[in-house]
Amino acid sequence: VEQRRRNHWGWGFEDQRPSKAELEAQAAAVAAHLGFSIGGLERPVELAEAQLPQVRLRPPTELAEICFDDAHARASHAWGRSYADVLRGFRGNFEHAPDLVARPREERELEAVLEWCERAGAAAIPYGGGTSVVGGVEARVGARFQACTTIDLGALDRVLEVDCLSRAARIQAGARGPVLESQLAEHGLTLRHFPQSFELSTLGGWIATRAGGHFATLWTHIEDLLESVRAVTPRGVWESRRLPGSGAGVSPDRMLAGSEGILGVITEAWVRVQPKPTHRAQTAVRFDGFMRGAQCVQELSQTGLHPSNCRLIDPLEAQTTLAGDGAAAVLVLGFESTDHEVGSQMDRALEICGSHGGSWEAVRAGGAQGASSSWREAFLRAPYLRDLLVAMGIFSETFETAITWERFPALHERVIAAATDAAIASSAGATVRGAPRVSCRFTHIYPDGPAPYFTVLAPARDGEEIEQWRELKQAISDAVLAEGATITHHHAVGREHRPWYDEQRPEPFAAALRAAKAAVDPSGIMNPGVLVDPL
Amino acid sequence: VEQRRRNHWGWGFEDQRPSKAELEAQAAAVAAHLGFSIGGLERPVELAEAQLPQVRLRPPTELAEICFDDAHARASHAWGRSYADVLRGFRGNFEHAPDLVARPREERELEAVLEWCERAGAAAIPYGGGTSVVGGVEARVGARFQACTTIDLGALDRVLEVDCLSRAARIQAGARGPVLESQLAEHGLTLRHFPQSFELSTLGGWIATRAGGHFATLWTHIEDLLESVRAVTPRGVWESRRLPGSGAGVSPDRMLAGSEGILGVITEAWVRVQPKPTHRAQTAVRFDGFMRGAQCVQELSQTGLHPSNCRLIDPLEAQTTLAGDGAAAVLVLGFESTDHEVGSQMDRALEICGSHGGSWEAVRAGGAQGASSSWREAFLRAPYLRDLLVAMGIFSETFETAITWERFPALHERVIAAATDAAIASSAGATVRGAPRVSCRFTHIYPDGPAPYFTVLAPARDGEEIEQWRELKQAISDAVLAEGATITHHHAVGREHRPWYDEQRPEPFAAALRAAKAAVDPSGIMNPGVLVDPL
Repeated sequence: VEQRRRNHWGWGFEDQRPSKAELEAQAAAVAAHLGFSIGGLERPVELAEAQLPQVRLRPPTELAEICFDDAHARASHAWGRSYADVLRGFRGNFEHAPDLVARPREERELEAVLEWCERAGAAAIPYGGGTSVVGGVEARVGARFQACTTIDLGALDRVLEVDCLSRAARIQAGARGPVLESQLAEHGLTLRHFPQSFELSTLGGWIATRAGGHFATLWTHIEDLLESVRAVTPRGVWESRRLPGSGAGVSPDRMLAGSEGILGVITEAWVRVQPKPTHRAQTAVRFDGFMRGAQCVQELSQTGLHPSNCRLIDPLEAQTTLAGDGAAAVLVLGFESTDHEVGSQMDRALEICGSHGGSWEAVRAGGAQGASSSWREAFLRAPYLRDLLVAMGIFSETFETAITWERFPALHERVIAAATDAAIASSAGATVRGAPRVSCRFTHIYPDGPAPYFTVLAPARDGEEIEQWRELKQAISDAVLAEGATITHHHAVGREHRPWYDEQRPEPFAAALRAAKAAVDPSGIMNPGVLVDPL
Repeated sequence: VEQRRRNHWGWGFEDQRPSKAELEAQAAAVAAHLGFSIGGLERPVELAEAQLPQVRLRPPTELAEICFDDAHARASHAWGRSYADVLRGFRGNFEHAPDLVARPREERELEAVLEWCERAGAAAIPYGGGTSVVGGVEARVGARFQACTTIDLGALDRVLEVDCLSRAARIQAGARGPVLESQLAEHGLTLRHFPQSFELSTLGGWIATRAGGHFATLWTHIEDLLESVRAVTPRGVWESRRLPGSGAGVSPDRMLAGSEGILGVITEAWVRVQPKPTHRAQTAVRFDGFMRGAQCVQELSQTGLHPSNCRLIDPLEAQTTLAGDGAAAVLVLGFESTDHEVGSQMDRALEICGSHGGSWEAVRAGGAQGASSSWREAFLRAPYLRDLLVAMGIFSETFETAITWERFPALHERVIAAATDAAIASSAGATVRGAPRVSCRFTHIYPDGPAPYFTVLAPARDGEEIEQWRELKQAISDAVLAEGATITHHHAVGREHRPWYDEQRPEPFAAALRAAKAAVDPSGIMNPGVLVDPL
C-alpha cells in the first residue's frame, strides 16, 4: 500500500518538494527560456493555514478504519490538477473539499461505503489519481446532498492475474501507471498506456475518462485495450465477460468507458498487455511550418503504416519543450514491434515526409533519443513545471480536441486566433511581462483526422487567475464547438466541460444516459454534476 | 429505388429462381459432395397458398402511399434468414408476419410512421436487409401490442456525401452492400465491409447488429469504421458529431451500435472509406490439423502484422467449401494496402507458418485466387446453397462466438462434441441418410483470442426441423456459455439468443439499458422482445 504522501495542492509527492534555492534557479531558467519577466516567487499556503469547510459527516464505526477526515486527506482530494485547481490549492483554497476520504482495501468495503453514503444522503466521488483537469473529482455536488465522501481507490492497486498465453492481465482499478507497469514487468509484459499523468493516474481513472495513451494510432484510448470491466454500482456489481471481441448487443464496457464515475466505481479490468517492443525506429522530422507538417501527417495517417508515435509539434511548442529550435515544426515519428523489424515502415514514412519537404535526423533503432527524447522528458516533467509556473505568476493550461482533416485548417486558425486574443486580453494588468505563447501539437491521429492539443502560456492576472482561466476556457471551447470539433478527445467532460458537452451530445442520448444512471444509482449519489444532471 | 422483388422465403431475388432441372442437378452434386443420400426435392409452398395472419391495422391516409399489406410484402418481411426462418417460409408458415410494411422515402416519413405506430399501439420493427439469423426482425412482439409495422429502410439507400480528403462518406442506412459500394466506386472509394450477407444486408442493419466484416484484424466490426450515427427515436433525432475520435463521456455511437432497433431507427452514418487496395498478397497455408493451425494463428495474432485475411478453416469445412481436400486445415492468409508493398509482411507471416509446420501455395499478388478464391466464392454462395439444402431435407446452421486463446482448446472440444452429439441425436429418424458434418473456422482474430464459427450440416428430421434446430441451438449455446465465451461475436442477439444473452450480460447493465430504452421509447414500441424485456 502506498505510503508516500501526495503534494496536497500540486503534482507528485511531498518528499519531492524542491528547496527555495532550487525553485529560484529553475524559475530564472524557465522565465528566460519562455521570454517572461521574473518577479517574486510566490510561496504556497501551508496546509496548516489553509481553509477547509467543516466536516459534516462521521463514518459509521465499521468503516472508521478506512475513512479519513484529516486536513491532508481532505485537501489533497479537494481538486483535480487543472491550472485552476493547482492555483486554488496553492493559495490554500479548498472550498470543495470532501467531508471525508474513504480508502477501501477490498470490494466488500467499497460496497459498504456506497451503502452508507446512500443511507446518509452523501454524494460519493470515485477517485483514482486525482489528475482530472475538468473538475471530475471535486466535491462540488450541489445542495441536495448532506455531505460528500471521496472514495480513493489507491489501496486497490494489484495486478491480480496474468494470462501470458492470451497476453492479458486482470488489474485493480486503483493501480497507478508505474505501479501496474512494475508488476507487469515481473512477467515481461507492459500495458504501454502512457498518458502525461502516467505517474499518478490509475487504470480505473483511465477507463472512467477514456484516457488517451502512448499509441498515436490504432489503440489511442484505453478502451481499445479492454477485455472486460468490473464496477460496483449502488445496485450491484456490473461485470462483463472477459472476451477478445463481442457483438452481443450494446457493449457494457463501452457504457462504463467514459462514464466518469456517474454509474458506479470501477474496481478492476482485464486489459490487453504485450511484451516490451524488441524492434524500434525513432526520428524527428522538421517541416517548414505546422501546416506543411499537417499535410504530411494526413498522408501518413492514411497509409496503414500505423506509427506508434506520430506527434507533430508546431515551431513554438517545439521550442518550448526543447524538441526543436523554434524555426521548424517537428514530427516525432516512431515505429515499434514485438515481432519484426520496422525499418521498412520507417523508410516508407520518411519517403512521404520527404515528398512534403521534411528533413530528418538519422533514424535511431533503440528507445527514445535525440529530439524525441527531449520531447518525452519534457512531456513527463510538464506537470511539475506547471506547479512552478503557478508560483511564478504564469498562466498555463492545455485544451484538446479532435476534428476531421477537411475541417482541421479552419479549426486550427480559429482556435489559435481565439486563444491568442483571449490570452492577450485576459493578461492585461499582469505583473509578469511577456508575450503569450499559444501552440499546438497532435497527440493522436486517425485516417480521418487528428487530435490537436493546444497549450497556452501567458502572464497571470494577479488575484484574478480563475477568471482568466474561465475566459480562456470559454474562448477556446466556443471556437472548438463552432468549428464542429469535440469538446474533448481524452481529457474528459467532468464539471468544467458541461456547457459545451451538453451542446455537443445528442439530446435523446442524454436522456438515455440519465435514465441509465437512475437505474443503477437511483439516489443519484455517484459523482453528481458530472456528465448529466439528475433526473 | 430497388425494383426487384425479393424471394419471399429464401435468399436473393425472385428473378434468380433456378429451374427444376437446375435444382435437381445441383442437389445431386451437393449430396454427393457432402455424403448425404438424395431423396425427393421438396418444393416451396407458393405464396398464394401460404398462411398469413389477418391484417389488424390500416395506415392513415397520409401514409397510405408508403405502407404495404400485400402478401408478398408481409411474407418477405416475416422472418429473418436463419435455417428455421427459411424452413418456415419455404413451408408457407408466416405466422409472425407484420400487419404492414412501411417503406419511408425520407426521414420525415419515418418520423410520421413512428408517431403513428405509437398512437396506434403498434410495435415497430426496423428492417434493413432482413438477413438476421437470430429472430431480430420477426413480428413476434407479444400480446401488449395491437399490431405490428415493419419499417423497411430500403428506399433510403443513397451515398449522400463523400469527403475524399478525410476519406469518409455519409450513407443512408438502407443501402445494401453492393448498392453503397457501387456509389462509392464512382469516387474511387470502398467501405470494405463484406459480411456473408453483403448482397442483401444494409449499413443500418450492420450498425444495429455490430456486424463483422471483411477485415480479420483491427476493424473487425462495422462500429470500428464509424465516425457518427444518426437515428430517429420516438423522442427525437439522435445524431452524434462527425469526429475521427472522441473522449466526451460515454460514446453515443457505441450505444446505438448493437442496439438492434430497440432505441430507434438508424437512418444514416458517416463511415470511414478508403481507396481500393493497390497492393495485395494472398495464399493458403495447409496445417496438419486445426489445432496446429490455431497455434500458428495465435502467434500471428500477436505479431502486429495485422493480416486483412486470416481465416483458419478446419479440414472438414475446407472440404465442404472446396478450400481444401479435407486432409489438412487451411489458413486463408492475405495482406492488403493502399500505400505500400505487403510482401515483407507476408514473408514474416509465412516464416511463422513454417515454424508451425505449415506449407503453402505460391503467394499471389493480385486479388483472391486459388484456394482463397474457391473459399470466397463458396462464402458468398452459401446462403443460396442453404435454400437448396432446405429443399433436400438437410439441416444447416451456423453458430459463432469469441473466446480468449487460453480457453479456446477447451471451448472447441466441448462445442464440437456437443454439436456432434446433438446433431446425431436430433437426426434420428430422418429420411435423408448421412453423417452429420460439424466443422469450425475462425472468422476474425484478436491478439487475445479468435472468433470461432461452427457449421453444422445434418439430415433434417422431417416435419420436426424447428425442434431439431432448437435442440442444436440449445446444446451449442449452453456449451459456449459454460466455457466462458460470448453467445455472439457478430450475429447479434435478437429474440433467439435471449436466454444466453440474459445470462451473459451484467444485470446492472441490463437495468441501465432497459431504462435508456424507456427514456427514448417510453411506449416500448421499438422492436419489443429484442435484447431486453419492457420495464
